[in-house]
Amino acid sequence: MKSKLPEVGISIFSQMTALANEHGAINLSQGFPEFDAPDYLKSQLNHYVHAGQNQYAPSAGIPNLQAQVAALIARRYQVNVSGQEQVTVTSGATEALFVAIQAIVSKGDEVIVFDPAYDSYEPAIELAGGKAVHIALTAPNYQIDWQQVAASITSKTRAIIINTPHNPSAKTLKSDDLAQLKQLLEQHDLLLISDEVYEHITFDGFAHRSVLSDPELFARAFVVSSFGKTFHSTGWKMGYCVAPKQMAMEFRKIHQYVTFSSFTPAQLALADMLAEQPEHVDELSAFYQHKRDVLVNALASSRFELLPSEGTYFLLLDYSAISELDDVAFCRYLVTEVGVAAVPLSVFYQQAPKDKVIRLCFAKENQTLEEAAKRLCQL
Amino acid sequence: MKSKLPEVGISIFSQMTALANEHGAINLSQGFPEFDAPDYLKSQLNHYVHAGQNQYAPSAGIPNLQAQVAALIARRYQVNVSGQEQVTVTSGATEALFVAIQAIVSKGDEVIVFDPAYDSYEPAIELAGGKAVHIALTAPNYQIDWQQVAASITSKTRAIIINTPHNPSAKTLKSDDLAQLKQLLEQHDLLLISDEVYEHITFDGFAHRSVLSDPELFARAFVVSSFGKTFHSTGWKMGYCVAPKQMAMEFRKIHQYVTFSSFTPAQLALADMLAEQPEHVDELSAFYQHKRDVLVNALASSRFELLPSEGTYFLLLDYSAISELDDVAFCRYLVTEVGVAAVPLSVFYQQAPKDKVIRLCFAKENQTLEEAAKRLCQL
Ligand SMILES: CSCCC(=O)C(=O)O
Ligand SMILES: CSCCC(=O)C(=O)O
Repeated sequence: MKSKLPEVGISIFSQMTALANEHGAINLSQGFPEFDAPDYLKSQLNHYVHAGQNQYAPSAGIPNLQAQVAALIARRYQVNVSGQEQVTVTSGATEALFVAIQAIVSKGDEVIVFDPAYDSYEPAIELAGGKAVHIALTAPNYQIDWQQVAASITSKTRAIIINTPHNPSAKTLKSDDLAQLKQLLEQHDLLLISDEVYEHITFDGFAHRSVLSDPELFARAFVVSSFGKTFHSTGWKMGYCVAPKQMAMEFRKIHQYVTFSSFTPAQLALADMLAEQPEHVDELSAFYQHKRDVLVNALASSRFELLPSEGTYFLLLDYSAISELDDVAFCRYLVTEVGVAAVPLSVFYQQAPKDKVIRLCFAKENQTLEEAAKRLCQL
Repeated sequence: MKSKLPEVGISIFSQMTALANEHGAINLSQGFPEFDAPDYLKSQLNHYVHAGQNQYAPSAGIPNLQAQVAALIARRYQVNVSGQEQVTVTSGATEALFVAIQAIVSKGDEVIVFDPAYDSYEPAIELAGGKAVHIALTAPNYQIDWQQVAASITSKTRAIIINTPHNPSAKTLKSDDLAQLKQLLEQHDLLLISDEVYEHITFDGFAHRSVLSDPELFARAFVVSSFGKTFHSTGWKMGYCVAPKQMAMEFRKIHQYVTFSSFTPAQLALADMLAEQPEHVDELSAFYQHKRDVLVNALASSRFELLPSEGTYFLLLDYSAISELDDVAFCRYLVTEVGVAAVPLSVFYQQAPKDKVIRLCFAKENQTLEEAAKRLCQL
């Protein structure tokens, strides 16, 4: 059987988690919290399951959840969107990204992707018949050179995918980045997919600049977010996409044939959570900044160079002073010999630079972070 | 913005459910149960949510659920499959169908689809760059003419999609159908997608003939099933795909970029349900046969002609004796004036025949079925 994705194997996150389990290593590779979803969210889920809310939700989402997302956006970004017409609930942000890409990419279209990039973008583009055009950003700053972006745009370019706060680099886009992005989008009439799944996790006063906040940018954008990241419930696979009305319609046409709808009781519970405990979202940055600092402090005496983490729940480490191994080999060494699973940065690139950088996830208990750091400090 | 699915609107099921709600009509349109998921399943879900099982499942599914599905297949069909290598858990059967189609259909490929057909097949084929070749089956027998199928196969044909027990016709494929199908698949080296989401719901001694039971058929097949149909939990959006090892690998490559994984606590709960209450599955046919009979009996004095329902939770009614309206207009009349929402058969066709047939869903409380029938008997 001919493969539709001949170059694709099992995702690096799955591989590393499997290796971590096999070797009993501390798993700081795949991005998921070690701590649990909020009690209130869990008990509301239980409530709706037992109240018999177990049949299909509307394909675009439970109206109250759509409305609560719109209220969240109004509160956080002072922007009004229509929950009913513009917010579509999806089975995780991965589904939202996949559907957004299917909605706009046709045979022969090019989509600009910044490496290091989340692993699902390129296969989704390929399955839509398009081609990902990669622009590599490199350590330590991962700064986008917008002139290089301009030079990469062709008559076939259809869209640009951005991700801020950025996984894995932990950088946030600045207002100057967004200004230059906007100019290019308008000049070349391109669409935008904005992956903002870590929107509520930024540090040290770095604000998240959502595409939602800029009417001209948002006019051509699918903005994707994740309840899993925000509510420590990655296994619930709940996310959403916000888009201008007509783009939302095209998104929904496809979504209804990909998953149709998402877990009904979780939608009802998430709506209650957003309505009743808004402080959870507002406190998320401080919560994760503390985690980051625990890890950073515990690694202070190590020989790793720590790159700045402005957001997300990831921290990059440069191991040039420690090993000559390439990053894949170094991660294999870490998981088997040191007892810590990390992700090599090169897997996020089409053409990896020679950077000696690995990613750690710090969405873990302090004790776990400290024990992992202790092991890493011995190198 | 150019539409990727220009001919598609909001799915008929969503439309009819919305109309039913708007007019306060009894909703026998969209296929979902009025009764609830089993208590044990719900309490196991609650158990795992509160036990903190809220992070990503493995992309292919929780191992115990894969194993329990393999055990179910062994028990029901006396066939051994490997849960680990061949069963992939998906976010509903719709996702499984979508992914299976993406896995095998490339630009220019043709896929043979039997109308009336479930609404997601064709858009999924189109999004993969392929073309659905429709073969129309008609009331009252919806019999496949395999010579016509043979004549529809071209050098571009890549696959055939079957659905048994069949939504909306409520027919089951017979062993002669499968024999003829097998011959065509082998002769032309085609693949098969077998939509068996109603596999556990057959009546009057009509056995479900699963593609899983035939090694040669299964060697070229993706077999799709639905926990939602089996466990009265359509809103959980849980399904799975079983395939030969290499096909399962290609399926998983794509699945990991579409939804990555499915609701973790539901997977754990479904595994327990399959292990601890196997009788639920075994009793499902009798349960729904009773429902069907309640509806059939209550409609005995009506002027509708009832078509035989061999499986699924649907019953077709021919209304030729009642109205000259086409089926869409007749359904609109039913929902607004009679207070019953049904689905017109024509929406399941590319080229609808002139059959005057509507579909009712009888996955409802007896009282609901009786009240709907009372209203329909007045026509
Ligand atoms: C869906 S598994 C990937 C989790 C994640 O976002 C990451 O580790 O980067
Ligand atoms: C996903 S909505 C469709 C439900 C269903 O299978 C039907 O009504 O045919």
